[in-house]
Amino acid sequence: MEKLSVVKIGGNIIEDEATLNAFLKLFSNLEGKKILVHGGGKRATNIASKLGIESQMVNGRRVTNAETLEVITMVYGGLVNKNIVAKLQALQTNAIGLTGADINSITSRKRPVKDIDYGFVGDVETVAHHGIDKLIQANIIPVFCAITHDGKGQLLNTNADTIASQVAVGMSKLYDTSIYYCFELNGVLKDINDKNSVIKHIDTNGYKTLLEQKIISDGMLPKLENCFDALHNGVKNINMGNTAMLTQSDNNFTTITL
Amino acid sequence: MEKLSVVKIGGNIIEDEATLNAFLKLFSNLEGKKILVHGGGKRATNIASKLGIESQMVNGRRVTNAETLEVITMVYGGLVNKNIVAKLQALQTNAIGLTGADINSITSRKRPVKDIDYGFVGDVETVAHHGIDKLIQANIIPVFCAITHDGKGQLLNTNADTIASQVAVGMSKLYDTSIYYCFELNGVLKDINDKNSVIKHIDTNGYKTLLEQKIISDGMLPKLENCFDALHNGVKNINMGNTAMLTQSDNNFTTITL
Repeated sequence: MEKLSVVKIGGNIIEDEATLNAFLKLFSNLEGKKILVHGGGKRATNIASKLGIESQMVNGRRVTNAETLEVITMVYGGLVNKNIVAKLQALQTNAIGLTGADINSITSRKRPVKDIDYGFVGDVETVAHHGIDKLIQANIIPVFCAITHDGKGQLLNTNADTIASQVAVGMSKLYDTSIYYCFELNGVLKDINDKNSVIKHIDTNGYKTLLEQKIISDGMLPKLENCFDALHNGVKNINMGNTAMLTQSDNNFTTITL
Repeated sequence: MEKLSVVKIGGNIIEDEATLNAFLKLFSNLEGKKILVHGGGKRATNIASKLGIESQMVNGRRVTNAETLEVITMVYGGLVNKNIVAKLQALQTNAIGLTGADINSITSRKRPVKDIDYGFVGDVETVAHHGIDKLIQANIIPVFCAITHDGKGQLLNTNADTIASQVAVGMSKLYDTSIYYCFELNGVLKDINDKNSVIKHIDTNGYKTLLEQKIISDGMLPKLENCFDALHNGVKNINMGNTAMLTQSDNNFTTITL
């Protein structure tokens, strides 16, 4: 099967224009078929607060009310997404900006209300891998923001990490698919206080050992769980580190495989 | 050649949810290949004013400064465009939301500063008709908002009527292309005070006569000029009226041909 890279960037890259520009150059130079997934960062929170929309928190979790969803749609789907697309075009990378509603690419279900009503938050149900592949086959690079839809006209807020892993799982039916999670650390660290203590490779057995030794930090645990879930569902390997891992010369990052 | 309809809607349709829903049903039922172009309406102005961004006016013309462009990108490219796409998907119409940056579909040049500096306003230079056709051939319906780009990373604000006519001119190289300008009137009126005085058909000679008789209102003059420009550049016919003209039964609107 042909190779496909799904690259996810977070707020730390989006919020600083120079960092974003440097990343987009690396992404443009990345060989082979590829997909970009981005979060929104603090921009949405800033604009919401300027518009007088309070961030609702329940039990420490953010709730997406109707007004917040509007801001997310504006900031993630408009401002951030379209500026990334314009910048990629300037680098001769033929990008197209997408939410899950576009070409019905990602449908989700509004999270059922149990203890907490998260509001307009969607859990991914389907990824239209054939539809997305039509774009890829036409040499178009999909750029997804963190918005999906329920197929009934409702946009929904969805975690960007989840979009990256679910899109990768979907595309792994057609491609030998890797995920690159770009974040502020160099990778999964043995010692959270030593940024150079990168664990180069984690496989199923290594993961068990790390869990037993309680080496993995609390923030990293759900990320790794999601990674193994994606690997069990067809994704070939997952890489975590800073954006330099997109260049072939850098090998100071974490690769995760079954 | 196969037929293609380019349908343009303005603020009066977008601003009222029931009107928008009714229009989108008509658009979904419209047979054959099609493209939707939408403006943004007063929503951008409202949000700009909430964010404390003043609308700069020079000689009665609106100027798009950097902050206003951000709001336009959020509102047109995000909020309005993505909600239209989600609503169309709910009607089983496989839409994709686009700015001119997406797949490099519409490039423009920042309007040169002469008497007035319009700021981040772009005049259309190229329409990638083959690129847009790749989507259409894949049974995807493009939904354009009123944003283009300069190919160097800069998004630009562009009039939605112009986008509709320029996209139609571009697509007329591949399709027998019609434009439908949906607006608040029933068509071009003989008597501006009588909404039923619709002129059913205007051709080159009829247009000359109307000009000589000074029947056309000032607001309509530039619209008609643009129409004849598009017709001279390959567009087959242009229709102006309310949204009911999209149904085959209604013939109370204005059709313009050479």
